[in-house]
Amino acid sequence: MNPIIPKALSSLIEAFAKLPGVGSRTAERYAYYILKSEPQKADQLSEALSGLHSGIAICPKTFALIEPGQELSPLYTDPKRDKTIVAVVAEPFDIVALEKTNSYRGTYHVLGGLLSPIDGIGPEQLRIKELVDRVDEDKVKELILATNASVEGESTALLLTQQLGARKVKVTRLARGLPVGVDLEYADLITLTRALEGRQALL
Amino acid sequence: MNPIIPKALSSLIEAFAKLPGVGSRTAERYAYYILKSEPQKADQLSEALSGLHSGIAICPKTFALIEPGQELSPLYTDPKRDKTIVAVVAEPFDIVALEKTNSYRGTYHVLGGLLSPIDGIGPEQLRIKELVDRVDEDKVKELILATNASVEGESTALLLTQQLGARKVKVTRLARGLPVGVDLEYADLITLTRALEGRQALL
Repeated sequence: MNPIIPKALSSLIEAFAKLPGVGSRTAERYAYYILKSEPQKADQLSEALSGLHSGIAICPKTFALIEPGQELSPLYTDPKRDKTIVAVVAEPFDIVALEKTNSYRGTYHVLGGLLSPIDGIGPEQLRIKELVDRVDEDKVKELILATNASVEGESTALLLTQQLGARKVKVTRLARGLPVGVDLEYADLITLTRALEGRQALL
Repeated sequence: MNPIIPKALSSLIEAFAKLPGVGSRTAERYAYYILKSEPQKADQLSEALSGLHSGIAICPKTFALIEPGQELSPLYTDPKRDKTIVAVVAEPFDIVALEKTNSYRGTYHVLGGLLSPIDGIGPEQLRIKELVDRVDEDKVKELILATNASVEGESTALLLTQQLGARKVKVTRLARGLPVGVDLEYADLITLTRALEGRQALL
């Protein structure tokens, strides 16, 4: 322990340094900023933190995050949403990204991660059984595999395709190709290969 | 408000986004990390935050941060430290940086900022009177102006030099020059100019 820094400050720095991507310098900066601000700002963050886990529930159907009082996610119960189309995502925040596009009217299923043997995440850690059950219950017609374009995302998509092969359900994958606004010459090889493979007919 | 994200989560994201240099993406990442961790981690950070302001006092002599029970900073009361040499710094954290060098045995004075008319910080906002008083009380022989090499740091140093001109005290400034380990060709013009001006005799 550094006797130059009061304990209250050093324990806050330590706690901040546990956040992802935060080193000791950044943690010091955050802590010192909080120290210079009015105590209300510290209280605000403190209360938001202590109320987090009790203020969030998980939808037993889609596994999206919901308010503790809700029974199911409004994105599932909304009669305007098509229950026969399900977008399969890795994490709850992926739903936010897809909702922002304002062009999807199906429902969601949160896997709770992606296959990653290095991190000890195998098929048992993902909510695959729940997805298979739902395909049957809701008579799902199309599953959109909306996992990342990473190795983990691709292998999870492959696994899901295999597990659902026996069922009469269309399985699709988000298109891979050139990001809008990016020049051809700057696209990486793999993206360009995928863009070629997935070329679409205009005429 | 986004109804897709539970309120407990969105208020944590908002609170994190108030930290310096944290945008909404980073705030989401922090909040989601806390959500995925055990509640103890959230509680730890929460308690460190709520205990911060009450767990810190300010030394009435040096204006360094001290424990609430302490009367004066140990860096001042320590008999091994030379009270006639005072390093003038902008913020309490600057003390930590200087202490890490392990080559300074004087005491400190925290100004509480640097001159910055844009941010509304004039001479009245800095602890200059307290410094002048201390020069007289402690019969200070040398003041080391250890402010940043920025415009604000330089103008604060200039102001202090003017205000202390009448007193019999040596006023020094941290050396400007090439950082150790940096190639001459990569040094910027101003640094190189200062290094030339401040050249030291070897023989």
